[in-house]
Amino acid sequence: MTAGFMLQSNLFTDAARQFPEGEETANAKYLIRGGFISKASAGVYSILPLGLRVLNNIVQIIREEMNDLGAEELLMPALVEKKYWEKSKRWDTDIIYKTGKSSNAHDFEYGLGWTHEEVIAAIAVNYIQSYKDLPSAVYQFQNKFRAEVRAQGGLLRGREFLMKDLYSFHVDSEDLNKFYAKVAKAYSKAFKRLGLKAMMVEASGGAFTKEYTHEFQVIHPVGEDIVYHCDKCSFAQNKEIYKPEHHADCSGKISESRAIEVGNIFRLGTRFSDSFGLTYLNSKGERLPVVMGSYGIGPTRVMGTLVEVYHDDKGIIWPESVAPFKVHVIDVSRDKKITAGKKVYDALQKAAIPVLYDDRTELRAGEKFATSDLLGIPYRVVVSEKTGSKVELKKRTQNSLKIVTQAELIRLVSSK
Amino acid sequence: MTAGFMLQSNLFTDAARQFPEGEETANAKYLIRGGFISKASAGVYSILPLGLRVLNNIVQIIREEMNDLGAEELLMPALVEKKYWEKSKRWDTDIIYKTGKSSNAHDFEYGLGWTHEEVIAAIAVNYIQSYKDLPSAVYQFQNKFRAEVRAQGGLLRGREFLMKDLYSFHVDSEDLNKFYAKVAKAYSKAFKRLGLKAMMVEASGGAFTKEYTHEFQVIHPVGEDIVYHCDKCSFAQNKEIYKPEHHADCSGKISESRAIEVGNIFRLGTRFSDSFGLTYLNSKGERLPVVMGSYGIGPTRVMGTLVEVYHDDKGIIWPESVAPFKVHVIDVSRDKKITAGKKVYDALQKAAIPVLYDDRTELRAGEKFATSDLLGIPYRVVVSEKTGSKVELKKRTQNSLKIVTQAELIRLVSSK
Repeated sequence: MTAGFMLQSNLFTDAARQFPEGEETANAKYLIRGGFISKASAGVYSILPLGLRVLNNIVQIIREEMNDLGAEELLMPALVEKKYWEKSKRWDTDIIYKTGKSSNAHDFEYGLGWTHEEVIAAIAVNYIQSYKDLPSAVYQFQNKFRAEVRAQGGLLRGREFLMKDLYSFHVDSEDLNKFYAKVAKAYSKAFKRLGLKAMMVEASGGAFTKEYTHEFQVIHPVGEDIVYHCDKCSFAQNKEIYKPEHHADCSGKISESRAIEVGNIFRLGTRFSDSFGLTYLNSKGERLPVVMGSYGIGPTRVMGTLVEVYHDDKGIIWPESVAPFKVHVIDVSRDKKITAGKKVYDALQKAAIPVLYDDRTELRAGEKFATSDLLGIPYRVVVSEKTGSKVELKKRTQNSLKIVTQAELIRLVSSK
Repeated sequence: MTAGFMLQSNLFTDAARQFPEGEETANAKYLIRGGFISKASAGVYSILPLGLRVLNNIVQIIREEMNDLGAEELLMPALVEKKYWEKSKRWDTDIIYKTGKSSNAHDFEYGLGWTHEEVIAAIAVNYIQSYKDLPSAVYQFQNKFRAEVRAQGGLLRGREFLMKDLYSFHVDSEDLNKFYAKVAKAYSKAFKRLGLKAMMVEASGGAFTKEYTHEFQVIHPVGEDIVYHCDKCSFAQNKEIYKPEHHADCSGKISESRAIEVGNIFRLGTRFSDSFGLTYLNSKGERLPVVMGSYGIGPTRVMGTLVEVYHDDKGIIWPESVAPFKVHVIDVSRDKKITAGKKVYDALQKAAIPVLYDDRTELRAGEKFATSDLLGIPYRVVVSEKTGSKVELKKRTQNSLKIVTQAELIRLVSSK
């Protein structure tokens, strides 16, 4: 979790009294009301300070899993010149935003990157010459742009959104398949750490490949996808490709569920290597096309999905691994100097526990508690005259309270 | 400095044998040849793994100085809807890239963010109501887009480039001026930590303000700006506004120098508050416009400037604060199992010293040394049979060598 501490009186944002108008999904309603994000236009959001803390936690978990695969981080541009898209025959897709400096549309110079196979293939040509340079893998966290007609659902479907895109390079399909399986494992681990139950679902490769690809789907009624999954074996297919006969040899029952796609993995084969002349020399000195894979996770969509999965009617319930802070200290003592709360805040800081301290003196206790429930920080600590030198500890997931000493508090929130 | 360690045989990139064609500036030549960046198109670059390590170090130094000002980090989008620019009357600027999904230019929906006064003013309306909410400040690190006609000079002038933009909000000009002076100090400190001598230069406010603004300029012949500066007092003005009579009461000599602008600070006044209705209630209950400031540093341009300032004919000489690694271990022993180098590499890792280890067995010593000089890592450590269990230590800035034990090595590179 991102280190840090913050006085709530200093926080740039504040929780709104009302839900935003015109938003239907829980993630848009709670994230906007809590001051995590701000809507700039349909499908386009600013990530506010509290939200950026959550997003950075999500990014860091994914980054660690990518590094564990041996992949190296880099950063490609959003302005992708027309010639790249023409090489791969993707200039004329509906999804692409085209950009120019002139008011004459014929002068469009760039397509805003909605995926980066073209750019990475062009880069890799400089660095992959021989089988000794393979396999290799690189990834980035970068904003993608997609001209979605229907951009709604908060962070679930954006026109601009953060993407982790990983690209891998191999001597042949066999080596790609080995890495593909490793990425699938890394994705499962990342989603687990993020607090999501993501099911690996077979899907169509779309414009990329004729082979099946795999999506990571979180079963949830607001999802746009429909998946068929077995209650007994790991069989799961997207509706697009679902055929009952593929599941003929299992006695399990198939359910139909709506689901949110939080990641996907593709075998690209030589589709982009061919367009960009990405080849290597094998040990016999023969020149062969590099075999590629492409693997995405949307960290902003993960953030939205987490709110869909983890909320109640009072607000968000962040999993500890991504919460903006671990502890929310609330001072409700009538002592306007709020020295008691400050002491607890200082002690938590000293123990390196990320903590938000509601030091605001002008609000009633009820208002502070309501905001705390909305923000969804895992542990709430209330300081008041009632508990003397002790404090009241409550988990956001539970209704029961504990009265604990400061030392017990530190021990309880430090564990795990 | 970013933690980490890397085997050079695993590195995705490799130094090129030649300088790139058509590049004139040192930063483009060395950064591309060294595999720090890759040119996607004029003024548009990918930041490759080695380069991202440098950029992250630059970003982290700037971030720490912004946090010390009490500013909070957030992240705004690149897609800025037309209505924002129309409100501030900046839709019809030459610098803006306009984007639409249709081939009809009349349907342009967005201007790509080349600065974010509009977006932040619109956000601030939600969170600034009273004088009690002021002053406040927020910042971001985000890619900006500018339709530069002349995009050359490597990272010095980009069409897409990373920007740190800070925005501040105040009750009046007096409070803005106080914060403005604090930011000037923070900038001076940041540039010093980054290894740059940046001079604070008076300049015109351009489209923003009629008051003087200040630029942070690094005197260097490749710079596009011309500044006049005194050798005795702190007087320094950009050529655009330079008038000798402003310096009448000092006996110092004025020099004319070319310089690279690495930062700037602006008093915006109420220019954007007025456009977006950003007001607050003072203690008497009167509604007044919020007074704003805007402050930029270009981390990618800083990276380019560092190479312009710190290089020799062999390559880059990174300041330690931003170097991709602190130590470059090079194994030139004839023992193809390279166990000796590995031992030193492991010991440095254990001491948490960021280290790149050239473990490649197929290259001659001379080639490895040339690449090491090109990459510009501060400390070079050579392991060979010649020095036995000791190693040869050389600073990139010096020609002299030292033969040291492993324990001495750790001590020497750990200090400072």
